[in-house]
Amino acid sequence: MDIATRVWNHKWKIDPIVRSLIDTDFYKLLMCQSVFRNKRDTNVTFSLINRSKHVPLANLIDEGELREQLDHIRSLRLTRGESTWLRGNTFYGKRQMFTPEFMGWFENLQLPPYHLERVGDQYELTFEGKWPEVMLWEIPALAVLMELRGRAVLKDMGRFEIQVMYARAMTKLWEKVEHLRAEPGVRIADFGTRRRHSFLWQDWCVQAMLEGLGSSFVGTSNCLIAKNRDLEAIGTNAHELPMVYAALAKDDAALAQAPYEVLADWHEEHEGNLRIILPDTYGTEGFLRNAPDWLAGWTGIRIDSGDPATGAETAIRWWKERGEDPTKKLVIFSDGLDETKILELYRQFNGRVRVSFGWGTLLTNDFRGLAPNDGLAAFSLVCKAVSANGAPTVKLSDNPNKAMGPAEEIARYKRVFGVGDQVAQEVIV
Amino acid sequence: MDIATRVWNHKWKIDPIVRSLIDTDFYKLLMCQSVFRNKRDTNVTFSLINRSKHVPLANLIDEGELREQLDHIRSLRLTRGESTWLRGNTFYGKRQMFTPEFMGWFENLQLPPYHLERVGDQYELTFEGKWPEVMLWEIPALAVLMELRGRAVLKDMGRFEIQVMYARAMTKLWEKVEHLRAEPGVRIADFGTRRRHSFLWQDWCVQAMLEGLGSSFVGTSNCLIAKNRDLEAIGTNAHELPMVYAALAKDDAALAQAPYEVLADWHEEHEGNLRIILPDTYGTEGFLRNAPDWLAGWTGIRIDSGDPATGAETAIRWWKERGEDPTKKLVIFSDGLDETKILELYRQFNGRVRVSFGWGTLLTNDFRGLAPNDGLAAFSLVCKAVSANGAPTVKLSDNPNKAMGPAEEIARYKRVFGVGDQVAQEVIV
Repeated sequence: MDIATRVWNHKWKIDPIVRSLIDTDFYKLLMCQSVFRNKRDTNVTFSLINRSKHVPLANLIDEGELREQLDHIRSLRLTRGESTWLRGNTFYGKRQMFTPEFMGWFENLQLPPYHLERVGDQYELTFEGKWPEVMLWEIPALAVLMELRGRAVLKDMGRFEIQVMYARAMTKLWEKVEHLRAEPGVRIADFGTRRRHSFLWQDWCVQAMLEGLGSSFVGTSNCLIAKNRDLEAIGTNAHELPMVYAALAKDDAALAQAPYEVLADWHEEHEGNLRIILPDTYGTEGFLRNAPDWLAGWTGIRIDSGDPATGAETAIRWWKERGEDPTKKLVIFSDGLDETKILELYRQFNGRVRVSFGWGTLLTNDFRGLAPNDGLAAFSLVCKAVSANGAPTVKLSDNPNKAMGPAEEIARYKRVFGVGDQVAQEVIV
Repeated sequence: MDIATRVWNHKWKIDPIVRSLIDTDFYKLLMCQSVFRNKRDTNVTFSLINRSKHVPLANLIDEGELREQLDHIRSLRLTRGESTWLRGNTFYGKRQMFTPEFMGWFENLQLPPYHLERVGDQYELTFEGKWPEVMLWEIPALAVLMELRGRAVLKDMGRFEIQVMYARAMTKLWEKVEHLRAEPGVRIADFGTRRRHSFLWQDWCVQAMLEGLGSSFVGTSNCLIAKNRDLEAIGTNAHELPMVYAALAKDDAALAQAPYEVLADWHEEHEGNLRIILPDTYGTEGFLRNAPDWLAGWTGIRIDSGDPATGAETAIRWWKERGEDPTKKLVIFSDGLDETKILELYRQFNGRVRVSFGWGTLLTNDFRGLAPNDGLAAFSLVCKAVSANGAPTVKLSDNPNKAMGPAEEIARYKRVFGVGDQVAQEVIV
């Protein structure tokens, strides 16, 4: 390293974790455009939720450092190169995925203020404002907390210990990649931005997939990495859409229709591989049973909670009932995957449907067993829309351990959506 | 990296493997001084011997590249800093280990010419000249061949594959280090220069030992690394002394005395922990049986062939017979060690004698299973004195697979030294 670089590096007050507004998941931008078009004036609050209470974030992470990182994110603006990429690139085979109107708005966007307060050994971190603005906090906020927690653990390790730890992590990931090569037909995308160990590590993981899996690696949800490495940006939509639409519903009848309203809006905007149903927000069984027929014509379904094989079987049965050919349909698994689970599901469903995988935390943050007291094991941190125009949001999912919202609202949603008993699954990440 | 460094790096025609005359084993310098004092005019031939015939060195290594590396070594001179270190440093607790006369000679030394010829798929590489000069070829010649073979294999690997391979190698070594921590009393030195994977890798391995083993790591045989890292330089003497002394013997009676003559010369020069017997050149049993009583007063013994536990038991029995207290004696194991063997021998002999280990190839070159077709596994390459003043040298050792010399001479030596049946041990490295 030359002396100028070294001196320049010393000028940084902090080492910024998120350095770009497109260091986020692609589906956030797709949803943001949809929200910008359909619900731009909705007031939404996003809140950090640490489902792993045994990880005392406020003891591990210095509040000042956290504020510096969040302030740095508020200083970011879309760069000219990023804007050019979003405007000019082809996404899912489509030119001009992002409208000039949306891009004009995005180019002027600064992320809104955050509210941070220490409560016991956890942080209360919330973002209130217009939906299209606050929704873009979710991914960078999670990435910052995950990485600051990692840095806190690494601070107590020696230089050499750290070097060996990364060597081990590389070895571990590469062994997963080699394992995955057993099925050349498998298709996997990186979905690991939000709970990544760090940006550089995620980038390395993407490189490992690229080098090791060839055409089995179909792209990354991270826009910045997709741009830098000229990869496909991958993603469609998430629970926040039905959660907010549902919270805005005036009565039970409107509530029952809210999830379909989301997809009706989506149907107008997107086609092909972007028409992916996320059915589990208020229970997959009921959602599919009551779904309008045009939804069965969509390209596929994403299974993000509950037992994944059961979810896929449910979808296959539903397509058959609606006269669709499941072998033409796409099933995307994206919940708690590791390479053994990926291979198992692939072998189980390949041929019966088209299968694809969104591999998240255990791709970009599998440091289990690699640091003292397992201090770098990923944990279950989320950042969710908790209210919309003053009304609380609710998520049920196919796993009661992932449910969220006020108890009385959960009860009401269960009644409206006809959700009965559910099988609980342990939530690891 | 700054642009000047990068451009400067491009100016190198080759990437030199050996960049210093003290990038060699410490015992070579001790022996060199002894030879310089006692036998400086002896003409000796050193020759490369690849005991692993399945490794076709001449197919793997380009002759031009090999010549460039050897020529580069001939261009090296002792630097002022190296000379200062050898003159001023304390070795084995002693100041001025190297005499002004020897240092004056060493400062003007250029390694003598080499003779290189391709024979089938192997190289014939020999060094002829005055003993103190040619003996210094052994270690760099071996290091060059081992590393060029490694480079040839790495040439066909991708950047990423190489990165993962080193990550694996680091993980593997660190696991050995962690395993060794089970016995805080164990004492280990790096003896891995000659068959190291590369200089940088050896240096990393030394660092791993240093970081991971603390006081269990007692130093390195590599003078350059000892100097750079301010570590103890470790080593005493080797088979070349008795082999050449024996070859010079005029008759059978002189031959029988030659190994003791070596140690008598050594006795005059060194004391304490440098008085280490290497008894196996012509069979440990006979050597100890016929040894003069003053030898039993030496500090310890190095076990470098045969079954190591048997060798140590033989030594212990011998010390007892000679009225010595084995618990005050040092046994240094240095043959084919890996961490499990080290722990096993330590547990077996700690308390009965003082135990120490010279860990070589499987410390600095354990890439087994890490490259395609196991192309980086270390193999059994040696560079030995094969003749002295025209007479062939002979080595028997305690392992018939390590014997060398003309058949009729081997028979004569066996008779003179009373060597009977020996147990063959597989030679891996």
